[in-house]
Amino acid sequence: MSKTDYYIGIDLGGTNIKAGLVNTKGEVIDEREIRTEAEKGPDHVLDRIGRMAKSFQSACEEGVHIAGLGVGVPGQVDTAEGIVQEAPNLPGWKQVKVRKELKSRVNIPASVDNDANLAALGEFAFGAGRGIHEMLMVTLGTGVGGGLILGGRVYHGAMGGAGEFGHMVIERNGPVCNCGRRGCIEAFIGTRGLLQAVKDRLEKGRKSPLSAIPEQSRTPKDISEAAESGDALAREVLREAGDALGVALGSVANLLNIERVVVGGGVAKAGDLILNPAREAMKRTALAVSRETVSLVPALLGNRAGLTGASRLAMLDAGY
Amino acid sequence: MSKTDYYIGIDLGGTNIKAGLVNTKGEVIDEREIRTEAEKGPDHVLDRIGRMAKSFQSACEEGVHIAGLGVGVPGQVDTAEGIVQEAPNLPGWKQVKVRKELKSRVNIPASVDNDANLAALGEFAFGAGRGIHEMLMVTLGTGVGGGLILGGRVYHGAMGGAGEFGHMVIERNGPVCNCGRRGCIEAFIGTRGLLQAVKDRLEKGRKSPLSAIPEQSRTPKDISEAAESGDALAREVLREAGDALGVALGSVANLLNIERVVVGGGVAKAGDLILNPAREAMKRTALAVSRETVSLVPALLGNRAGLTGASRLAMLDAGY
Repeated sequence: MSKTDYYIGIDLGGTNIKAGLVNTKGEVIDEREIRTEAEKGPDHVLDRIGRMAKSFQSACEEGVHIAGLGVGVPGQVDTAEGIVQEAPNLPGWKQVKVRKELKSRVNIPASVDNDANLAALGEFAFGAGRGIHEMLMVTLGTGVGGGLILGGRVYHGAMGGAGEFGHMVIERNGPVCNCGRRGCIEAFIGTRGLLQAVKDRLEKGRKSPLSAIPEQSRTPKDISEAAESGDALAREVLREAGDALGVALGSVANLLNIERVVVGGGVAKAGDLILNPAREAMKRTALAVSRETVSLVPALLGNRAGLTGASRLAMLDAGY
Repeated sequence: MSKTDYYIGIDLGGTNIKAGLVNTKGEVIDEREIRTEAEKGPDHVLDRIGRMAKSFQSACEEGVHIAGLGVGVPGQVDTAEGIVQEAPNLPGWKQVKVRKELKSRVNIPASVDNDANLAALGEFAFGAGRGIHEMLMVTLGTGVGGGLILGGRVYHGAMGGAGEFGHMVIERNGPVCNCGRRGCIEAFIGTRGLLQAVKDRLEKGRKSPLSAIPEQSRTPKDISEAAESGDALAREVLREAGDALGVALGSVANLLNIERVVVGGGVAKAGDLILNPAREAMKRTALAVSRETVSLVPALLGNRAGLTGASRLAMLDAGY
């Protein structure tokens, strides 16, 4: 292991595989993206990952050493063994021995973890979480994802299931969540919750440019844009969702006394319209010590957090 | 360090100091309890702790070696330096150098941590948390305390403030908590919340033997006793408080994928009348992986958890 080595980071998604050649500063030297073709099963997908890794190898200058490869997978991972136990959006992925299979294809040591954990690790090592030790990464999208860095390391919990921030309950008799439970934070700030909040207000006769967009094609991006243009209804929806997010973050701060919350994902592009009310509610909910310790910042790496985090996992496993 | 060494554990409270001589199996060989006399200030209290330690030393048989001393303090502790930064119930305790002061008094290496953390460590090492790595200890009393064991070690968070389980919010517009916020779990299952739930029901004309006890002198123990005698109102109050507790525990399970929740404290003496509804709500709230992983059990060490945990801290710091 040396600081001139390069590492490959792979972000395996249900639709696309993103891959990058990354140096030890977290700089992405070379980047590729291909379709996952997940419907053709694990062997096919592993072949595709293997070919991407080989293409990085052959594109490297003489003397460049690729010291490891990390893969982020949207599912449950046995990180010690490098086995994907289950990945709901990847057909056929049950007990897939990713480390062993990739080793036989490309002869580079391979490490595997859950994609949300690696996005957290990416921001922690190279992005908005640098210089601290206790961090929660929250990803706001269709669902609400989470990844924890505790004591400077990814925290997995007993069976690799830690980080499900989206299903912390802030209103036990509240709105129904995608998971079927009531009052999870995802029910307030996930895509469905946001769009429902708009719909409820329009049905009460409130005016907004959002009413010109057919209900089925409205997106969180439409809400952000309307809010940026000054629409009161859209601003209110983002403010209330941000407030709900902040209550949940304040609860996490009380339990874990974290230093920083890093918020990424598509919905987070609404920026301070959602993050400021979240900050206020988080500070209001956190007790003194936790309140003084914690801050909330936007993610810095965008959709590269996953692959740089995957490369960082490979670095850690190589002892760097 | 050897397994025949003994360690002193001190549980420093606002009213009493409990102290024990503990072997490496966690067995309490000798036990003392004296008044804290906290009103006389830190030096006086440290003198009293020092004298207790010396009395253990002089009572020991020839050849017995006391290898360390641990102290649990109801406040915020800099564990690395052995300094109590603040302890609201101990007058004058600001930046008290406990390690240094005890070293000068008794010449035994001293370690210090927050008392809730050490109660968790005690149950983890010698009680209901043996054999696992990820545990939350919850103490149900006037307030609701918490301590976390993550990866087999006490988890402190960034500034020593971790473990405030009692102020996780499960109903953001819910009843007012002792802390002034709304809907914290303590507002439902702390002493005040429980008694308020009884009062609300009696005022609605519900019948219960609890109405024979003057409002000001009712205690959680009265509720437990009435429930055990079959009183429907008391059973309902405990069931609803247990349900609220379980929702918060399910949220923690989702975030941390813990293996075990250990519940102690006076209110927990209501046993399964409160723990069964808590188990049900926890399992209902936790997602699949976390649900399969987590269990809820009563604490085993009672009010000795703190002092055995303090002795365990001393063992750890001695390398045992």
